[in-house]
Amino acid sequence: MTAKEANQLNLNQLIKDGLVGAEKAMFDVTTSDVEVLRDASHHILNAGGKRVRPRLLLLAYIALGGTDIEYIAKPAAAVELMHTASVVHDDINDHGVMRRGRPSVNSIWGRTFALLTGDFLFTAVYELMSGYKDLNIDLAQSATALVEGETLQASAVKENNFTREMYMQIIALKTAALFRAASTIGAKLANATQAEIDAFANFGFNIGLAFQITDDILDIIADEETLGKTAGIDIEQGRGIGVALQKANGKSVAVKDDPIESIKRKMLEGDTIEKSRKQAQQLVDMAIMSLSIIPDSEAKTELVNLANLVINRDH
Amino acid sequence: MTAKEANQLNLNQLIKDGLVGAEKAMFDVTTSDVEVLRDASHHILNAGGKRVRPRLLLLAYIALGGTDIEYIAKPAAAVELMHTASVVHDDINDHGVMRRGRPSVNSIWGRTFALLTGDFLFTAVYELMSGYKDLNIDLAQSATALVEGETLQASAVKENNFTREMYMQIIALKTAALFRAASTIGAKLANATQAEIDAFANFGFNIGLAFQITDDILDIIADEETLGKTAGIDIEQGRGIGVALQKANGKSVAVKDDPIESIKRKMLEGDTIEKSRKQAQQLVDMAIMSLSIIPDSEAKTELVNLANLVINRDH
Repeated sequence: MTAKEANQLNLNQLIKDGLVGAEKAMFDVTTSDVEVLRDASHHILNAGGKRVRPRLLLLAYIALGGTDIEYIAKPAAAVELMHTASVVHDDINDHGVMRRGRPSVNSIWGRTFALLTGDFLFTAVYELMSGYKDLNIDLAQSATALVEGETLQASAVKENNFTREMYMQIIALKTAALFRAASTIGAKLANATQAEIDAFANFGFNIGLAFQITDDILDIIADEETLGKTAGIDIEQGRGIGVALQKANGKSVAVKDDPIESIKRKMLEGDTIEKSRKQAQQLVDMAIMSLSIIPDSEAKTELVNLANLVINRDH
Repeated sequence: MTAKEANQLNLNQLIKDGLVGAEKAMFDVTTSDVEVLRDASHHILNAGGKRVRPRLLLLAYIALGGTDIEYIAKPAAAVELMHTASVVHDDINDHGVMRRGRPSVNSIWGRTFALLTGDFLFTAVYELMSGYKDLNIDLAQSATALVEGETLQASAVKENNFTREMYMQIIALKTAALFRAASTIGAKLANATQAEIDAFANFGFNIGLAFQITDDILDIIADEETLGKTAGIDIEQGRGIGVALQKANGKSVAVKDDPIESIKRKMLEGDTIEKSRKQAQQLVDMAIMSLSIIPDSEAKTELVNLANLVINRDH
């Protein structure tokens, strides 16, 4: 075995241990005595998800020399739970019936308990982070940004005022801010210099933007079976990249025959998806460039792979 | 002017400055660029409320010798905002149309924006507390308890299984835990000893229980005009102290003519309210006793007054 192979094996073990630790921390903190909170939280956590935020935190930490995987399990869990909380509340507001291939929390437990489950996940984040003194502000500010982004989106939909600029502002707040926090927290936990923190802030922010653009593209072209959530919801609600194609979903989305058919045709003829794909690629390129000050390593290669995976995926 | 009078004047000024500081911190942290979050947050904050939680935190701090009022403005704001967040979400789940004499957030901005406003207030709490390193766990755990209490209550209503024991468990979680956190945080900010922290934990917890019992009694006997929130909602949802009287509210609550009249009569004939009043009085007595280890002072007298006010109020 070469030294490089040994490093790669070691890295794989660190990543595995880190993700297992984060998973355990998520389940532990949500194991409430209150049955419905525990069951609903574990339901959504057991449904999986890509765990891209904890992975980002973990890789930033390792790339800067961090090795104490136990120490970072809770922050890694916190960034994923923050995302999960927003997903549970999002599904209430959007009447989403499927999430990650399973019925959504609101579709099983109803709106009241889904609202409380989302609140519970928010307070779990706060509990998980309470021991990490200087990092609370990073996560708190990204949490506020997330809620602001969701609100701007709901306002834009309501006012039917959805420009490309507003779209970028919304995804910066609702998605990229938490990616930036995950990346920055990983760096800070490894006692990064300010230059390194800035590099990881840029890296996280840009792949966050690319991630959301890709998500919206996938939403537009998704088949419900492959995506595993109520396809078309983001479009039906007026979100996404301006114009949109929708797979009719007989159960949850009212089929508006003619308008959708017309949008669909417009979409397939237009170049909006292609333009958005190019933009996501540019953001990933910028993200990777911002890591140039970090010495090469297997972990850095994994970060580059993660950045590329963010845009090259089918769900 | 006697020394005692001078101390009292000084205390009054500290309390005033502390509450003004907390108020400013609440408005500052909720002054989002996102209009609806700012407007809805300021709407509910401008409606007033008793500010009993920040007052408790403030008095605990002063009674233990604290004088740096600026230092405690943010934690004092945080405990009130945590309560406010729960109120906004509670009004969604209960379809409450009035709160603190004003239309509720959900009745003005609708459910989607009310849900997001509640989330925003939660994240604002987290932001406010991010600089107070060792106190995060107190507030985080009380926030989790609050959500657990609300959830137990909703479960009990749904299953129509509402015992006196369950009632006590619910109010311990949904109300008394945050009172305890406010009191404990105030003590800790004044560098209290463990014995002092324990005394203030007991004080806060017991007046929290008494406060909720009194709230539920008031809800039962309230007139909508004097209470300033949608009277009868807590009863209509099956909460409160077992049996209940309801003022019919034509707008928001379906009037169930016969059952309510029958409950009303039962209530007025029974002794449930009187029993509950006695229990609240006992809890306040216990709260005051737990302060016996604290030296007498004007601030301690104010704490005793606060404890008595918790049960002797008409709104």
